[in-house]
Amino acid sequence: MNGAEALIAALVSGECDTCFTNPGTSEMHIVAALDRRPEVGCVLCLFEGVATAAADGYARMKRKPAWTLLHLGPGLANSLANLHNASRGHVPIVNIVGQHAIDHLKHDTPLVSDIEGIARPYSRWLRTSRSDSEVGRDATEAIVASRTPPGQIATLVVPADVAWGESGFPAPPPVFPSPRLPAPETIERIAAMLRTGARTALLLSGSALYGRGLAAAARIAGASRAKLLSPYPLVRIERGAGTACVDRVPYVPEQAMEALKDFRQMILVGAAAPLAYFASPSKKTVLTPPECTIETLAKPEEDCTGGLEALETLLPPGKSKPLVEPSARPPMPRGEITLPGLAAAVAALLPDGCIVVDESMTTGRAMLPAARGTGPHDWLGNPGGSIGIALPLAVGAAVACPSRPVLCLSADGSGMYTVQALWTMAREGLHVITVILANRAYSVLKREFDNLGGGKPGARALDLFDIGRPDLDWVALAKGMGVPGTRVTSLDSFGRALQDGFAAEGPRLIEVPL
Amino acid sequence: MNGAEALIAALVSGECDTCFTNPGTSEMHIVAALDRRPEVGCVLCLFEGVATAAADGYARMKRKPAWTLLHLGPGLANSLANLHNASRGHVPIVNIVGQHAIDHLKHDTPLVSDIEGIARPYSRWLRTSRSDSEVGRDATEAIVASRTPPGQIATLVVPADVAWGESGFPAPPPVFPSPRLPAPETIERIAAMLRTGARTALLLSGSALYGRGLAAAARIAGASRAKLLSPYPLVRIERGAGTACVDRVPYVPEQAMEALKDFRQMILVGAAAPLAYFASPSKKTVLTPPECTIETLAKPEEDCTGGLEALETLLPPGKSKPLVEPSARPPMPRGEITLPGLAAAVAALLPDGCIVVDESMTTGRAMLPAARGTGPHDWLGNPGGSIGIALPLAVGAAVACPSRPVLCLSADGSGMYTVQALWTMAREGLHVITVILANRAYSVLKREFDNLGGGKPGARALDLFDIGRPDLDWVALAKGMGVPGTRVTSLDSFGRALQDGFAAEGPRLIEVPL
Repeated sequence: MNGAEALIAALVSGECDTCFTNPGTSEMHIVAALDRRPEVGCVLCLFEGVATAAADGYARMKRKPAWTLLHLGPGLANSLANLHNASRGHVPIVNIVGQHAIDHLKHDTPLVSDIEGIARPYSRWLRTSRSDSEVGRDATEAIVASRTPPGQIATLVVPADVAWGESGFPAPPPVFPSPRLPAPETIERIAAMLRTGARTALLLSGSALYGRGLAAAARIAGASRAKLLSPYPLVRIERGAGTACVDRVPYVPEQAMEALKDFRQMILVGAAAPLAYFASPSKKTVLTPPECTIETLAKPEEDCTGGLEALETLLPPGKSKPLVEPSARPPMPRGEITLPGLAAAVAALLPDGCIVVDESMTTGRAMLPAARGTGPHDWLGNPGGSIGIALPLAVGAAVACPSRPVLCLSADGSGMYTVQALWTMAREGLHVITVILANRAYSVLKREFDNLGGGKPGARALDLFDIGRPDLDWVALAKGMGVPGTRVTSLDSFGRALQDGFAAEGPRLIEVPL
Repeated sequence: MNGAEALIAALVSGECDTCFTNPGTSEMHIVAALDRRPEVGCVLCLFEGVATAAADGYARMKRKPAWTLLHLGPGLANSLANLHNASRGHVPIVNIVGQHAIDHLKHDTPLVSDIEGIARPYSRWLRTSRSDSEVGRDATEAIVASRTPPGQIATLVVPADVAWGESGFPAPPPVFPSPRLPAPETIERIAAMLRTGARTALLLSGSALYGRGLAAAARIAGASRAKLLSPYPLVRIERGAGTACVDRVPYVPEQAMEALKDFRQMILVGAAAPLAYFASPSKKTVLTPPECTIETLAKPEEDCTGGLEALETLLPPGKSKPLVEPSARPPMPRGEITLPGLAAAVAALLPDGCIVVDESMTTGRAMLPAARGTGPHDWLGNPGGSIGIALPLAVGAAVACPSRPVLCLSADGSGMYTVQALWTMAREGLHVITVILANRAYSVLKREFDNLGGGKPGARALDLFDIGRPDLDWVALAKGMGVPGTRVTSLDSFGRALQDGFAAEGPRLIEVPL
């Protein structure tokens, strides 16, 4: 067994059996080892930022990591921006990065670089494997590190001679750490806060936003007067009629402050307190009112679900029902394209079990609230704010859940960063309907320019916010990568295109000019 | 004057007046300052890897740096792979990276990251500006650092409050360092080597490959029996009839060893000794024969041109002429598409003054030799081996030299990494003819798999080398970004498309299915 085979054996044994990759010469022995392990799913990506975001989407849905196989420092470098997003969302990913044979490094050939230096900013666990006899164990430790609560990025650098060396052996199966419960006195203190009757928000993140955790939160909201909120930076939230009624804190600071102004207590469950993304010369960063007390029920690395369930037992037993969304599906709107109309159309047509991937930026902020009363679905956002996540995140979600349709909402500007994901959708036949909200601009910057005191932007600034010269033709881009596309001109044709996409197999793209 | 205005003033004063950018919220005050300085050229890119490669292409042609304006850690991260290539080519680039206001960092909001950590692996000079009164001087030092021989990458991180602070003032104009001449005894030792009559190669790089340096090398080759070579990793070489006769060391190690086997002396002029890019379990890394003595006339950071001119004066005055390429333009080939036919067609039609950007990988290796006897032109390669440089490098070369046509030769696999460059070509109306050599594969990996002992690739490995399922439709991709494109089916139609492209204004794309 060579090192590469030991590596793959350890990954499989650690339940890390799906690989998103763009390999190169230094990874050829790992590719050869994959050749002999058909049970490992391998998804080729034409750009490494697609691979890491796909691994992110996969892990959010599967609640276990996928691995990436990347080529040297430059391949890892291309993947970093979406590792930023995953690291901010505490999403587990195992990166396997090829390296030159150790003895080759002294020659300082063109592709030599400081791989560990490139990996360090976004890797909570980082190691270069030293030998073929250790690489299996290293991979196991990487998986364990990635699954250490709340979930993190682990990067293992594998030199070519470690991969081809013949002294590999299988690592023992890993033991995954579990998150620990919050301390009993913490839970009691939070319960006491809920009993005061002060206006209180529970700000939920991590496992508090789906499954048992979210169900417990709904019951707590029903039994107390607490309001359930999610942060704007969203990893995954389970939604639809019958699931907990959760409002998202708005992105725009003024709107967030308005939404939060009446709360006097905020309880954090796996979440960070609401803050403005950016500083401004004249505005506040902290979005809660000064008189709001902020306490933590569970830190991100603690057991949010267990903490909520324990909290529930300390509340007075009441007759109140869980606070869940009522069923409310709007009728299909018609006529001219408007942002509220698009949101209503999505809500009208969203199929049960759909996974919505949302990077619709300024144009799609009505989407999430509009769909709250539809059938059950999951909603994935961008927890790190590095734009260019939606299309590849949809790839990973679709690979993780092949029987569920994926609706990918992307702005045009953000979509271009990792547009290569469309090709992987076509290659894998993934059921992803990508909606491009094409406003031909980096709209968020127009607003921020003024917000930061720039005043009215001049010709040069406007030019830098404008991506409409020339207009991107998304139907052509999709065709170029093998994805059938259509451009819609009304809510009626948007609705038909959505319905067609959900009814068909494989990927589709819908361009919505705004 | 605020910090952002002081920054721009320093950049202009330092002759660093062209900006390739994809800005974000944290850079808004710099954008506002640009609004008031129309003399700074600003080129918007839809992805940051386009911006850095464009800055690279600009600097190679202008022999002075452009600057990039990038958004926080993720924007910088997206730019890194092409910074790898530029750093390997000793190409000067000044990166200006926005940062949150210093006081905001403690909040650890979603877009906070370790920007210096991300920058360090590829920045030889790196600083975070501490105040609005220092940022102008910091920018000047960054430019000086980038222009320190042999040319390097300088990264200045500018916090938003440094940009908006009102205590900026203009920095004094910079003094740029010059490369120093090689030591006289070194030059004498090399002259003595040339006089021995042993079979000798001069391996040229840096300024030895164009202008006065290359002309001196041609005279030295004429006056001695020395052969002129360039490394495979190529930054810029001046070529065509009447310029020095230089052979490039082949990429494939076996071919390189064959080409080098008769040399007993090798003189490095700004170049590193020829080495295999990758180690192999069974093959050598050093490509020169063991009996070849390798000596250095000039290190990359020394004055290669001055060193060659000084060397020339020590050689016996002879009647021999400079060793230059004879004029030899092949006739336009016809019929079926073949790789030699494509190379001959390029050579037949290459216009005088053309800039050729070459990342044609396995399919284009006949291009460079075929064009040696055409009119004068420059040839730019990929000195770092991180694929995905050609299209944006062509953008930068075209911005630097608006009166010269640019022929961009790209493989399909490498072209997809930074495909967003096509949009910038359309937006700026750049006269770039992009030829996509579409073999639907990562062909280099098929060869390397076997070369490294992988044997015959199985179904899984072949799948990972195959980018033809589905085929990329490059004409549609180009249309999607506003570039007129055509697919050719014969050498005749390829020739017509090339001629049309050179005759027209603005960008074109030609897909060549192989």
